[in-house]
Amino acid sequence: MDYTIGLDLGGTNLRAAAIDQTGKMIDKVAGHTNLSEGREVVVADMVKAIRTLRDRLGRNGLSGIGVVVPGFMDLEKGAIVNSNNLSSLEGFPFRDRLEESLETPVVLENDGNAAALGEKWMGAGRDVDDLVLLTLGTGIGGGIISGGKILHGYMGMAGEVGHITVVPNGNPCGCGNRGCVEKHASAQAISVMARLSGLGDITSEECFHLAMNGNEKAQAVFLSMGESLGIAVAMLVNIFNFPLYLIGGGALAAWDQFAPHMLGEVRRRSLTFRASNTRIEKATLGSEAGLFGAAYLPRMNSAPVRA
Amino acid sequence: MDYTIGLDLGGTNLRAAAIDQTGKMIDKVAGHTNLSEGREVVVADMVKAIRTLRDRLGRNGLSGIGVVVPGFMDLEKGAIVNSNNLSSLEGFPFRDRLEESLETPVVLENDGNAAALGEKWMGAGRDVDDLVLLTLGTGIGGGIISGGKILHGYMGMAGEVGHITVVPNGNPCGCGNRGCVEKHASAQAISVMARLSGLGDITSEECFHLAMNGNEKAQAVFLSMGESLGIAVAMLVNIFNFPLYLIGGGALAAWDQFAPHMLGEVRRRSLTFRASNTRIEKATLGSEAGLFGAAYLPRMNSAPVRA
Repeated sequence: MDYTIGLDLGGTNLRAAAIDQTGKMIDKVAGHTNLSEGREVVVADMVKAIRTLRDRLGRNGLSGIGVVVPGFMDLEKGAIVNSNNLSSLEGFPFRDRLEESLETPVVLENDGNAAALGEKWMGAGRDVDDLVLLTLGTGIGGGIISGGKILHGYMGMAGEVGHITVVPNGNPCGCGNRGCVEKHASAQAISVMARLSGLGDITSEECFHLAMNGNEKAQAVFLSMGESLGIAVAMLVNIFNFPLYLIGGGALAAWDQFAPHMLGEVRRRSLTFRASNTRIEKATLGSEAGLFGAAYLPRMNSAPVRA
Repeated sequence: MDYTIGLDLGGTNLRAAAIDQTGKMIDKVAGHTNLSEGREVVVADMVKAIRTLRDRLGRNGLSGIGVVVPGFMDLEKGAIVNSNNLSSLEGFPFRDRLEESLETPVVLENDGNAAALGEKWMGAGRDVDDLVLLTLGTGIGGGIISGGKILHGYMGMAGEVGHITVVPNGNPCGCGNRGCVEKHASAQAISVMARLSGLGDITSEECFHLAMNGNEKAQAVFLSMGESLGIAVAMLVNIFNFPLYLIGGGALAAWDQFAPHMLGEVRRRSLTFRASNTRIEKATLGSEAGLFGAAYLPRMNSAPVRA
């Protein structure tokens, strides 16, 4: 059997899976990201999860290991430059430490890029070589697949689509900018706008249910959120002219509320969209996109950063 | 001698040049774009310019012909989808008509993409394989070079960086959007803002001289223009993480007035910029960037559109 191991380190969950060359998940382990116990413990947990799978399935069939962590990455250094969720891991030389402990090469990647790659391999992007993914969670992550490969830029920091400015003087973002799309169209932004609308302390999901039941304040939240997302997607369409743009993440569940506004905004704002049959669709792998992407990393004939 | 012919069709000028493989311009012809006489006359003038150079230098050394026209292009059809300057040429099958008349293949390209390629070949981008060019003229054109090649997208319409939204409810644009960067930071936008500021009917150049002489209204125009441009460039930095972003076009002359505001805005808005040594610099080929790009087109091992 030919398999790879993918590990996805999130703000709360640590998951690893063994996936074969056809994309079939053979085995999986799941645990917690024990941030409070310090980064040495987190790395030890990562190593343990990978070893568990490797021991169970044997080293013979193992074709590589891919590890996915959140935040702005410096792929040359193999470290996180900046992460809202895992700020205690900033600057930590992940790749080197993992390779040391596992005594084998590890391919490190940003979570958004890996999710985009996962969707390209086994999800909604299987039929194209070029796509952009936006993942609507606490923030907005995402990644760009160009010619079947992750667009890395020269330091591996490309694809930060959550930090597209959609409101020049909008809500402040941890990155230093104001009006980033992730501050106006993420699950967290939905929840914040609901509170500002007087709907109280509700989740994006609760806001969605209110909107579906006809609550006009909740519907106005999704109007704003959908238009903000549409501004960002329209720009991506104009810049890339790719055949496919995918929306994923937790807030995808509210698609019926925000998608009409998003699509209306893209249509208004993008001549390229109106002149083409560009598709804007739902991602299909859910929270496992990053895991699939992680496992695919060693199989990709990836252009090295700063070749 | 090994040479190619590049032709650059602008809104007012039609230029063609023979350039050898080292980037040396051997011969050149220049004329007018006779739009008022109809598109058949324009195409006949293009064919004539190319034939003139081919007859002078001989067919033996001719390695290819590249032709550059302005506007949103459908490269598959070899036609302009939409052009503010040359709307009478929309939908016209340029490539096929030129190939018919010249009895040889022609590589067609959008003016912004070609200018970016020209800067990469013989201009400010010679030392990199990845760059974005923004050309500040009547509108804002530009192009994206990724891995040494033009980023085309699936229909050849990628790289429309002038239509990045920088003011969501800003000035209306011919593309249907509002607040495109070309409506807030082009030479035309400078002139329009000067008029709105009460400076009268002046050109962007006159506005620049006023600003340099201490006129506060003119300085405010460049503050606004620089910040708008900075919002767009910051997004491009976040999306691409390329090593180099170039500013070209007529308004480049006002660099000393707008660049500090532009750079300040990029620094504030882009964590990637602050965490890297991304360069934002002047393009160096001026109005000949497109001509060099046109001549380089046949030499590029370009990925075909919809391969």
